[in-house]
Amino acid sequence: MERVAIIGASMTQFGQREEWVVDLLTEAALDCLEDAAVDASAVEHLYVSNMASGEFEGQSGVMNAVAHDIGAVPAYTQRVDQTSSSGGAGMYAAWQSVASGASEMTLLVGGEKMTHKTTGEATDVIASLTHPAEYKTGVTLPSFAGLTARHYLERFDAPRESLAKVAVKNHENGVDNPHAQFQKEIDVETVLESPIVADPLRLYDFCPITDGSAALLFCPESVAKEYADEYVVVAGIDGATDTHVVHEREDPTVMGGVVESGEGAYEMSGYGPDDVDVAELHDMFTILEFLQMEGLGFAEQGEAWKLVEEGYTERDTGELPINTSGGLKSKGHPLGASGVAQGVEIYEQLVGEAGPRQVDADVGLACNVGGFGNCVITTIMEAAR
Amino acid sequence: MERVAIIGASMTQFGQREEWVVDLLTEAALDCLEDAAVDASAVEHLYVSNMASGEFEGQSGVMNAVAHDIGAVPAYTQRVDQTSSSGGAGMYAAWQSVASGASEMTLLVGGEKMTHKTTGEATDVIASLTHPAEYKTGVTLPSFAGLTARHYLERFDAPRESLAKVAVKNHENGVDNPHAQFQKEIDVETVLESPIVADPLRLYDFCPITDGSAALLFCPESVAKEYADEYVVVAGIDGATDTHVVHEREDPTVMGGVVESGEGAYEMSGYGPDDVDVAELHDMFTILEFLQMEGLGFAEQGEAWKLVEEGYTERDTGELPINTSGGLKSKGHPLGASGVAQGVEIYEQLVGEAGPRQVDADVGLACNVGGFGNCVITTIMEAAR
Repeated sequence: MERVAIIGASMTQFGQREEWVVDLLTEAALDCLEDAAVDASAVEHLYVSNMASGEFEGQSGVMNAVAHDIGAVPAYTQRVDQTSSSGGAGMYAAWQSVASGASEMTLLVGGEKMTHKTTGEATDVIASLTHPAEYKTGVTLPSFAGLTARHYLERFDAPRESLAKVAVKNHENGVDNPHAQFQKEIDVETVLESPIVADPLRLYDFCPITDGSAALLFCPESVAKEYADEYVVVAGIDGATDTHVVHEREDPTVMGGVVESGEGAYEMSGYGPDDVDVAELHDMFTILEFLQMEGLGFAEQGEAWKLVEEGYTERDTGELPINTSGGLKSKGHPLGASGVAQGVEIYEQLVGEAGPRQVDADVGLACNVGGFGNCVITTIMEAAR
Repeated sequence: MERVAIIGASMTQFGQREEWVVDLLTEAALDCLEDAAVDASAVEHLYVSNMASGEFEGQSGVMNAVAHDIGAVPAYTQRVDQTSSSGGAGMYAAWQSVASGASEMTLLVGGEKMTHKTTGEATDVIASLTHPAEYKTGVTLPSFAGLTARHYLERFDAPRESLAKVAVKNHENGVDNPHAQFQKEIDVETVLESPIVADPLRLYDFCPITDGSAALLFCPESVAKEYADEYVVVAGIDGATDTHVVHEREDPTVMGGVVESGEGAYEMSGYGPDDVDVAELHDMFTILEFLQMEGLGFAEQGEAWKLVEEGYTERDTGELPINTSGGLKSKGHPLGASGVAQGVEIYEQLVGEAGPRQVDADVGLACNVGGFGNCVITTIMEAAR
């Protein structure tokens, strides 16, 4: 079967935006088409990754509005929802649409508009993605993160500072990403002195609430060669769920969905953890970066914190740069956009368009996590040049 | 490429249900797996067609809840939304997941829980799928139907009764469907004397608000042969959009999405309109059955009403039985379930499990319409025996 390529990428400014989600999606979509020099009329399938435009804006059918606004009608449309991993699920949907032969030009756009809601309102919408037995008793995603972080630190004798260092690193990377919500450095003290959210985690252990959109353009490799000298190939992609009731899991530090989707993506690609040159992990909470590093085989269980301490994941000096984009922590986390934006960063790193964030990379990996690992997508991309 | 087969089908009782949508989805999913004698642990991908669980029930992440409740974890999950055609889009997603080689056993479940909302509340949610320029000025889907019906009747010199006869036929078919919301015959007078909703259309020209769920199980044909002697093959499937702003269309009686998706499905299958033995059309409003008959080539433009008058679409005596299930009109229209339930009816007709509704059919077609034709999926299925 012919390989699936990515020939264009874009993302809007992340942060507090005034536009409604359809305009954010349209902006990223048009930029992506321009980046690839492909006309909207060539788009056969359009996938929109978006978790909750109905809940956030009282507006549904946004995928049809985008098709209309970019001039892609009569392209087939579909909204892809997999909660916080909707963007990664969109990459899987786009891959399937091309790999199945259904479409020769598939545009994926992910986006969310959230900042017009209060933090409480936004938290209510996000909490509803978990099991009612948990969130209706007050155990929301930040609570899971706090409980898991405490368990991890005690069990593996990890210093509290190691979590803070994830945030510090990702903020440092975000300084060089003009689209990031926060472009400012922080230090370990900033994290440790910020307000407690879910003990031991504090405000700076968490990603912000964000508006924004990102897009990628998929086609068969033979079509990619017509449009571009350099492009990226989806080498491996797989998704998996874990127990929807989080407290049913045997080991709270093992995210089954990360392990399963990672194994699937490695197997499909023929690559292993040692082959990955750059990775975007879903650092909605700092502790998640440790759990994904371990679940994906970048570190042994209980040892990711040591790699972070040693600088292994630093952008300019580390063996495996993680979250060169700034991650969700500093770039921001517009739910449906985040997984797509991870793909955008890996694409830019692989085609050499990452500017001051550029690292030397032939193979990149993105891991997009929904809920507290309730559903996960891992994608491995490689440069074709 | 190997063909994609369907080896199991089920639907719950449609109507007013007390359960939340996750339990409705779980019921249909388990029944479908039992129908095919496939264990939940064999499911690799799970697609849930659902438009608005967040808006209707304040609950998101329902696909992960279903995976958990049926015992399919770590299966990959995704929610598929394409407004009222989410079920048809789910069939396309399921087809792509198998055709791309990503999954060898894909379960599709569509469902919606709506009746706990007032008609006004439900209408607000549904209206939000159209363009704000239209619904915010009061032009909702029933308005489009009324305007289009008036135009059709005048332009093509069709009697008002011909529309009523669509409702009468579909109610007659629904009497023999134990899962239908309404299992009662009506006559032309019932329709013509019911309250006006959007002149000239009256209450009995419209489908009801419904709770319910339906499921289908997809796999490669080689796998299907291991499980079943009789199964169904997806011969053709395609989706398309039309202008999202309905008033921009040149001819209000031509649904571009129906025409485009129909042509795509016919081309892929090698069949044409004359080869179709039975069809499920999206009769959310009676006028839509005419427009789909014409868009799919079953009738010339402006002549579908004559075929209905002549009995051409009657179940037991007609040349092309349409909506043998009772259609959305009498079976009900739980948004995300409807397209899947259309597929269930065609499946049952093709494998000879339609009981008192059984017709003689080798090739069946389902057309699922989102919005007022804003997005449409057409699926052609054939019996393999």
